[in-house]
Amino acid sequence: MFLVNGQVSEHLSLQDRAIHYGDGVFETIAVDNGAPLCWEKHLQRLAKGCHTLGIPAPSQPVLEKEAAQLLSNQTRAVLKIIISRGRGGRGYQSPEEISPVRILGLYDWPDYPPEYSKAGIEAGLCETRLGHQPLLAGIKHLNRLEQVLARSEAGAEDYPEMLMQDISGLVIEGTMSNVFIISAGRLLTPNLGCCGIAGVVRGLILEQAPELGLTAEIKKITLDEVKNADELFFCNSIMGIWPVKQLLEKSYPVGNLTGMIQNRLMEKRQIVA
Amino acid sequence: MFLVNGQVSEHLSLQDRAIHYGDGVFETIAVDNGAPLCWEKHLQRLAKGCHTLGIPAPSQPVLEKEAAQLLSNQTRAVLKIIISRGRGGRGYQSPEEISPVRILGLYDWPDYPPEYSKAGIEAGLCETRLGHQPLLAGIKHLNRLEQVLARSEAGAEDYPEMLMQDISGLVIEGTMSNVFIISAGRLLTPNLGCCGIAGVVRGLILEQAPELGLTAEIKKITLDEVKNADELFFCNSIMGIWPVKQLLEKSYPVGNLTGMIQNRLMEKRQIVA
Repeated sequence: MFLVNGQVSEHLSLQDRAIHYGDGVFETIAVDNGAPLCWEKHLQRLAKGCHTLGIPAPSQPVLEKEAAQLLSNQTRAVLKIIISRGRGGRGYQSPEEISPVRILGLYDWPDYPPEYSKAGIEAGLCETRLGHQPLLAGIKHLNRLEQVLARSEAGAEDYPEMLMQDISGLVIEGTMSNVFIISAGRLLTPNLGCCGIAGVVRGLILEQAPELGLTAEIKKITLDEVKNADELFFCNSIMGIWPVKQLLEKSYPVGNLTGMIQNRLMEKRQIVA
Repeated sequence: MFLVNGQVSEHLSLQDRAIHYGDGVFETIAVDNGAPLCWEKHLQRLAKGCHTLGIPAPSQPVLEKEAAQLLSNQTRAVLKIIISRGRGGRGYQSPEEISPVRILGLYDWPDYPPEYSKAGIEAGLCETRLGHQPLLAGIKHLNRLEQVLARSEAGAEDYPEMLMQDISGLVIEGTMSNVFIISAGRLLTPNLGCCGIAGVVRGLILEQAPELGLTAEIKKITLDEVKNADELFFCNSIMGIWPVKQLLEKSYPVGNLTGMIQNRLMEKRQIVA
């Protein structure tokens, strides 16, 4: 079910620039007990993405009202919000008057096996490399062909998640998630200055690391550092945290620090328990 | 006016992956005297892009029939063809059964001043740099935020076209066109192995250069080489060829070789005269 600018709809105008250019941003939000989790954080990122693209950000009260309309009677679900620049003629230039379009979609909660969060997953390594584009790095925009190619690789269906490197070989993220390693008690996650999406859960983990007594650092991370890590996990708003128990030839323990972070986010209702 | 899989429509399903991921390719085709120009070449490129993305290419007779339906009673117009991977659920992975969607759109012919082709244009230089993604380079896919950002730069409205560099500073293309330089009688155009769209008119020029007695070469081109060029022009299917008379501090003649190429393409009805 979708709401387009507050109206129930199954269709979008063929003049919309989301179709022609991927000219917009989106959020994917966990809904638990009828409420969207980390709502403010998602709206902050949405606004930041809109700002980067020069699209007027949507009004928060309007989005709240529309989300509430869509989520009535829902317990657990996925809420997707797309903000498109809206209609335009042929040609890349933004129309003089921008009338952004809000698309809110309701999706079933995915039936990931519970052991993914508890016992960890076997992860793959993508052949698809992320290109560099600093102007768009970090934001969750609608140009997602790299992720489509990554998830279409032969063998991708064998892995719940796969690690992606950039064109220079640095480790960046999962195909649909961010990645953290824990090495000698330090929590490390890749720098997303050239590519990657800065996830809401990634931001929450970085924010709360000090309270958990962890030193967190954003840095360039090589595949060797991943291989030598003590713990490794993926995170996003829907999966929560998936520890990695196996990547390539290397096995990892589902370690204490990953479990501690997981528990903390669940206690604070930032991810679904 | 749009045809979606042969049916007149103003809307696209909100489940379409063109909206969510820009998961598709497109062509922009000049229509003259009711006929699409360079039809075979456009369909070849469309098929190549579909192949890269793992989307089954549309049947040529079906596209021909639909284009004919849309173009009846048209003299001069722009035909846009989008091939989307079609519907999918939430998640980047391609659905198991792909049902691509054909979108054919008819647009007014743009009213570019005739002197752009004859006397040349004053071109700008974009600040927006093209990122590197060899897997997607060359194809005309729907992830076009870089071009949107480029055309949204302050001052872009002062220039009919602007030159774009990549993140390493090499010259790649215009915001909506390819670029050629002529230096010491040689015709040079940038290598598009890392970024850029390999345009149909670019291909035709490269193909026909030998018949015109010109040595053509695809190579890395620096901004200094552009500044030192004897002639400089942009090309695409709609503009045809626009000589550049001014770029930054440098003036160029609207030279003989550019004019010769222009005439040749017009004679062969590959661009609109």
